[in-house]
Amino acid sequence: MNPELLEPRLNLSPKKLNELTPASWAERYREVRSFTEELCAPLAVEDFVVQSMPDASPAKWHLAHTSWFFETFVLQKGLAGYRSDPHYAYLFNSYYIAVGPMHCRPRRGLISRPTVEETYFYRKQIDQLMEQFLASATVEQIEQFAPILELGFHHEQQHQELLLMDLKHLFAQNPLHPVYQPSRPKREANHSPLRWVDFPEGIRSVGHSGTEFSFDNERPRHRVFLEPFQIASRLVTNQEFIEFIEDGGYERPELWLSLGWFFLGEQKWIAPLYWEKQNDEWFSFTLSGLRRVEPEEPVCHVSYFEADAFARWAGKRLPTESEWEVAAADAPLAGNFVEERNFHPVPLGKNPVTPLAQFFGDVWEWTSSAYSPYPGYEAPDGALGEYNGKFMCNQYVLRGGSCATAKNHIRHTYRNFFPPDKRWQFGGIRLAENLL
Amino acid sequence: MNPELLEPRLNLSPKKLNELTPASWAERYREVRSFTEELCAPLAVEDFVVQSMPDASPAKWHLAHTSWFFETFVLQKGLAGYRSDPHYAYLFNSYYIAVGPMHCRPRRGLISRPTVEETYFYRKQIDQLMEQFLASATVEQIEQFAPILELGFHHEQQHQELLLMDLKHLFAQNPLHPVYQPSRPKREANHSPLRWVDFPEGIRSVGHSGTEFSFDNERPRHRVFLEPFQIASRLVTNQEFIEFIEDGGYERPELWLSLGWFFLGEQKWIAPLYWEKQNDEWFSFTLSGLRRVEPEEPVCHVSYFEADAFARWAGKRLPTESEWEVAAADAPLAGNFVEERNFHPVPLGKNPVTPLAQFFGDVWEWTSSAYSPYPGYEAPDGALGEYNGKFMCNQYVLRGGSCATAKNHIRHTYRNFFPPDKRWQFGGIRLAENLL
Amino acid sequence: MNPELLEPRLNLSPKKLNELTPASWAERYREVRSFTEELCAPLAVEDFVVQSMPDASPAKWHLAHTSWFFETFVLQKGLAGYRSDPHYAYLFNSYYIAVGPMHCRPRRGLISRPTVEETYFYRKQIDQLMEQFLASATVEQIEQFAPILELGFHHEQQHQELLLMDLKHLFAQNPLHPVYQPSRPKREANHSPLRWVDFPEGIRSVGHSGTEFSFDNERPRHRVFLEPFQIASRLVTNQEFIEFIEDGGYERPELWLSLGWFFLGEQKWIAPLYWEKQNDEWFSFTLSGLRRVEPEEPVCHVSYFEADAFARWAGKRLPTESEWEVAAADAPLAGNFVEERNFHPVPLGKNPVTPLAQFFGDVWEWTSSAYSPYPGYEAPDGALGEYNGKFMCNQYVLRGGSCATAKNHIRHTYRNFFPPDKRWQFGGIRLAENLL
Amino acid sequence: MNPELLEPRLNLSPKKLNELTPASWAERYREVRSFTEELCAPLAVEDFVVQSMPDASPAKWHLAHTSWFFETFVLQKGLAGYRSDPHYAYLFNSYYIAVGPMHCRPRRGLISRPTVEETYFYRKQIDQLMEQFLASATVEQIEQFAPILELGFHHEQQHQELLLMDLKHLFAQNPLHPVYQPSRPKREANHSPLRWVDFPEGIRSVGHSGTEFSFDNERPRHRVFLEPFQIASRLVTNQEFIEFIEDGGYERPELWLSLGWFFLGEQKWIAPLYWEKQNDEWFSFTLSGLRRVEPEEPVCHVSYFEADAFARWAGKRLPTESEWEVAAADAPLAGNFVEERNFHPVPLGKNPVTPLAQFFGDVWEWTSSAYSPYPGYEAPDGALGEYNGKFMCNQYVLRGGSCATAKNHIRHTYRNFFPPDKRWQFGGIRLAENLL
Repeated sequence: MNPELLEPRLNLSPKKLNELTPASWAERYREVRSFTEELCAPLAVEDFVVQSMPDASPAKWHLAHTSWFFETFVLQKGLAGYRSDPHYAYLFNSYYIAVGPMHCRPRRGLISRPTVEETYFYRKQIDQLMEQFLASATVEQIEQFAPILELGFHHEQQHQELLLMDLKHLFAQNPLHPVYQPSRPKREANHSPLRWVDFPEGIRSVGHSGTEFSFDNERPRHRVFLEPFQIASRLVTNQEFIEFIEDGGYERPELWLSLGWFFLGEQKWIAPLYWEKQNDEWFSFTLSGLRRVEPEEPVCHVSYFEADAFARWAGKRLPTESEWEVAAADAPLAGNFVEERNFHPVPLGKNPVTPLAQFFGDVWEWTSSAYSPYPGYEAPDGALGEYNGKFMCNQYVLRGGSCATAKNHIRHTYRNFFPPDKRWQFGGIRLAENLL
Repeated sequence: MNPELLEPRLNLSPKKLNELTPASWAERYREVRSFTEELCAPLAVEDFVVQSMPDASPAKWHLAHTSWFFETFVLQKGLAGYRSDPHYAYLFNSYYIAVGPMHCRPRRGLISRPTVEETYFYRKQIDQLMEQFLASATVEQIEQFAPILELGFHHEQQHQELLLMDLKHLFAQNPLHPVYQPSRPKREANHSPLRWVDFPEGIRSVGHSGTEFSFDNERPRHRVFLEPFQIASRLVTNQEFIEFIEDGGYERPELWLSLGWFFLGEQKWIAPLYWEKQNDEWFSFTLSGLRRVEPEEPVCHVSYFEADAFARWAGKRLPTESEWEVAAADAPLAGNFVEERNFHPVPLGKNPVTPLAQFFGDVWEWTSSAYSPYPGYEAPDGALGEYNGKFMCNQYVLRGGSCATAKNHIRHTYRNFFPPDKRWQFGGIRLAENLL
Repeated sequence: MNPELLEPRLNLSPKKLNELTPASWAERYREVRSFTEELCAPLAVEDFVVQSMPDASPAKWHLAHTSWFFETFVLQKGLAGYRSDPHYAYLFNSYYIAVGPMHCRPRRGLISRPTVEETYFYRKQIDQLMEQFLASATVEQIEQFAPILELGFHHEQQHQELLLMDLKHLFAQNPLHPVYQPSRPKREANHSPLRWVDFPEGIRSVGHSGTEFSFDNERPRHRVFLEPFQIASRLVTNQEFIEFIEDGGYERPELWLSLGWFFLGEQKWIAPLYWEKQNDEWFSFTLSGLRRVEPEEPVCHVSYFEADAFARWAGKRLPTESEWEVAAADAPLAGNFVEERNFHPVPLGKNPVTPLAQFFGDVWEWTSSAYSPYPGYEAPDGALGEYNGKFMCNQYVLRGGSCATAKNHIRHTYRNFFPPDKRWQFGGIRLAENLL
Repeated sequence: MNPELLEPRLNLSPKKLNELTPASWAERYREVRSFTEELCAPLAVEDFVVQSMPDASPAKWHLAHTSWFFETFVLQKGLAGYRSDPHYAYLFNSYYIAVGPMHCRPRRGLISRPTVEETYFYRKQIDQLMEQFLASATVEQIEQFAPILELGFHHEQQHQELLLMDLKHLFAQNPLHPVYQPSRPKREANHSPLRWVDFPEGIRSVGHSGTEFSFDNERPRHRVFLEPFQIASRLVTNQEFIEFIEDGGYERPELWLSLGWFFLGEQKWIAPLYWEKQNDEWFSFTLSGLRRVEPEEPVCHVSYFEADAFARWAGKRLPTESEWEVAAADAPLAGNFVEERNFHPVPLGKNPVTPLAQFFGDVWEWTSSAYSPYPGYEAPDGALGEYNGKFMCNQYVLRGGSCATAKNHIRHTYRNFFPPDKRWQFGGIRLAENLL
């Protein structure tokens, strides 16, 4: 597995963003940057250092890499005479080959220095220079750097989600079950029966257009032909997934893709990631420690293979990403996002307003679509755009954001993607079906 | 890598095939079976035994497994009181979990017994019983078994192609460069300039329909929306691929998918599989031994990653499988198939009749389409159909058949598939491009 | 694990062997060479080709490599103008770097050509040239080549034992349980109680001296100081080893060396190699097929780790190689060798003549001595001697020969050696203990 | 490689130690414990957390494990009603299976909690309880616990050396080249020519006897017979090792053990560990950062394989451990130990007093002796002694202590041991030779 597959993707879509004043850019910069630091506030110094698997990165690295991004793509180009520290450039580049050589990803956890304090110092330095740059920027400069600034904000938001994912994975390795945030009062749950909503056949348009920001993989907007289908009104719950488990779901090869059955055997899957059974009851490790599995919560931390097997067991299938986008088109961009500070999916509340619920927030929803370029997709030039499309292989698209995603980061057309065996992202299931 | 990905897929599409007489079924049975044996004729006993990599199987195993197929799915059900040898059932089952346990695929080369002679004896026994069954079958029986017989023929043809692929890989490991078939007289080649043929946007239908045989993954026929595109008039040649190599194609990460760059590094790719450089000239190992690379032949034994990188280098892209099927719709089912006994792609002849050439035979053409179920696809019931869809993950579709494919095995809608890093199949490249 | 560790070691001890006539050299040559072929007589062509693990070699390779040895070290030097086939030199060199490059050991099973017939043809050619060389050799030539001829005979005898070991391992992989030689009439066994024989402290001499042939690792004869010890009168039996198993021998870490416990876990050892339990009874795969474990036979196919753990469980220890050699000094060079054609250890007969039995033949006896150079050891010069000492690391010494060893190959001072985790050689256990 | 091989070994030799007063035991306890903390003083919190390879442990773990040792083997037995934290017992047990289950060694670096501060708090708690125990202990208790206290001190000293080794390895991974201690003033070096000192043949006694503390592997004292030999007056220097390198030492297979040549190739050895070439000059990473290689310093961080290859290149050999012990018998227990706080070997000073120099301190000296039990060795009973002998396999003995060893930890009979491929300990070379 190439760990670089998991790096966030950058967008170079040209866009007029210069209507904003320098002050408002600075304001947004501060907001995004300070939220990263807020997320790190509960950590001990030791928690910043460890890389618990090759796919993950230490929190310290996330702090530095997001700073390096602004340093490399803004300060180095925008501040006359600026010179960066070559050691930091080497350590905190992720995968931008055009920018220069980089430290080997699986070895990020071996670097005890710079210390956390030094890393924060570096971060502050970048922040001061960025403030200085934004304060003194001309309109032309703002116009020039607006797309890259916008990108930098979204890039940092992606790393905020990765930081939470990586931290959860780290804490899950520890028999002491560290707590990132104390449990919040339990939300009242009530069972919401699964309903189906129908969509007719026809030519539909999907993908992003217009001048608002998007990543390049969401473009261009284009037409697809959809056969008639129906989609589930809500996400699959833990209770439903437990039924799958108890019906031998993890022991019946006929329910699984061949490659999924291989991973199941190799990694000894018997339940979603972070679940463990104690005295015949399922518990799950969360950022609030080990908790009893809540039946009405959306199931989370399943791989594509588990989502697909569950759907086959249920006699249904996963939606394609086009179907998902068409179905979600009218759903409001609201939900259990990272700003709620639940850091965990929540049960569907009592009176869901819409017939179709939970499209946004809670968990990323696996689709049956392999991650491919849209017709007419073109990767932008230069280092930033160098790799936009290079991860379009052996991954699947997920939609809708999660409880670790920022609300102003997500879009209806947003395409997240992971290899089908990965489980440490907050990934869940929505079912679909053909309509005759 | 799950080696089972490479097993041929079976089709259970219900179809009326009972118009044929028992005698004609027996005739077709004999034809298919004897061609397998003809392909094995040049082999020494030793060549039947070795498994040169986990993806490959020994020739002996192919001989036995194709017999086991008829034994299991016809004789066991159609011949009253028939009992198979449990050892053979264990050794020669490939991946049909519902049929029973099986010998571990990567260990097929450790089984020196049954000997080749005993394997042929087993094969002959099955043949005699099949002849006997077909000779005495009632119309109802023919009606019942026709789909499975049809399947068995196509299954055996798939193994004929695998047998040639596996044998080529085996011989390529040997510094003595064994020759499977002496070189045939060199075909007169002339350079055919690459032209582009345009196709307009619109809703098109792709996939198989009707009562003729197809694999289930080709069904159902369904509508897709295509943006306007153009497609190359012929395959990419060795000469063109050498230009890519000489332009640093294997040394420029910006040309490659991230995962492809990983495989390139891990497996030290510097040219297509079976190529080696001697005194500044490229040679390639073929089933006729080591030969100078012929500039006008279609390039062969490239992975999806290499095909994709070549297309990016050329400023083009690969076609989707829908585009390929639409473009090939009028092409005749003719070409350099296994019946030509070239066992190698050949240069385009002097006066190609059509503006679009080489769609069939020579090399399988990589498409940019991940191997996914068609809308409305349903896997059939039972052991035979158990696994039709289970390989639809992390593979790419190839189209058109190769110099190792039987002419009456291929179709316009035929979907072959391999993981993107595999190179031992006869796989090549046709370019496509967007049309504004 | 370096597979080359397992190559037989060659001896260059200078020695006057020229008293023998050319005819007697030719006679011995024929004897040794024909016995190799006799051992191969029961094989099917297919059995010659397979390499069942990296430590093993195909029978075909043994046939060719032993011929290559005479070709390289006799014919190339003794026959004017002789030119060998460079392909064969490449394929059949084992580890003599000074002689030239060689084919990679773990890939020996991928070479289906030369065929078995061609390999025999090569072998016959070498034999004819050797006969011709010996028939026409001058006294000076015999004098010059005598040590290398002697070496070649012993080298071939070592490969005869390897051939049987490798073949047994190959057949053991096959669920059909191939039979190399039908079972021989069961030998009458009677239980011989274990007795202890004492040896006093003192300076003893061990190792080889004099002009008779030995490998260089047996030289020079030198003095050691031994504390008083006692040694068991016979080998450990299957019955005794079953008691160890039933007492939880494979489940109690305190009985095992730390590294042994690691291998036990990694390779899931629960009994000696080739043992399997059916309906609560132990069976063992032998060269006569799968047989019920015979209680009074010496236990066989145990690693050093198992031998050591058994001894600790029994409250004893393994002998050092010096103790073994001192204890065996008066034992006759007689026993169940390969010439008996049992190819398996046999129970101790009714009336063992000596108080100390079974020192020679049946099974190689693990000693507690790491394989190290004797004081004053010097590796000879040149290609043949190049590697005599290079395997003296992380291996343990075994003594006494086995049921697969030629009687005129073994000596009281003979040092065999294997890494402590290896089990496919015929290795067993004799206990020793300190004497206060 | 079993990582447990690297744990320090404990000694249970019964010994009357009760002549010491409780106050003096407390004094020694404080000395040993505070030195561990002194060694940790230069570390940042981040440095305590990382495990840079499976063989190493985080500094935090060393701090806790040494405390766990006193808790488990003293407090739990000596303090009525004492109950330890089961989590800590699980996390900080190293390999004492009889004491209970333990955390998997290669995962020690994944445990960010307990934090460093919590670990120190745990350590202080143990210290207070130990002080309390020692202050109130009766003579009978002191008599009972004296051997285990003595052991605990030596155990902690072994971990002090491991801590420095592991820290050096960690810092060496960091491109920033962290400095543990600033460089000390360069010591005046002068070249001391290598001389040889002869020892006659005869029966000698080696190993420990008497009532002073030793590890059990040094016992019993016993007789060996030595052939005449000579030994080098000093250690091999960097200058001499560079000559070996420049003479193609790392490129000539004939100089290497077969297994050593395998490791050289696999791990790409071209010089001792921590060496790198810059502009044709050798530099070495030290605990004072990257420094030019000092020609007259003893060569350090070589494996057994490198030591053995160097000796073969020099036409000499390594000494056996008996030879070393006999030769060092009259050497004073003085040298460059950890108390000198050089943390690096130093050149031989101007006027070495003795004909044989550098036996103690600087670097551990590889011997040619495989690590085996002495004749009559018996492992003690119980958890502490459970594993004394279990590492006696596939390791080699090193003698004399290093610049990271405590002066009052080493003895003339002290046997250290490492697998022959390990290089991160401070290991060097002294030559020996046969005397005719």
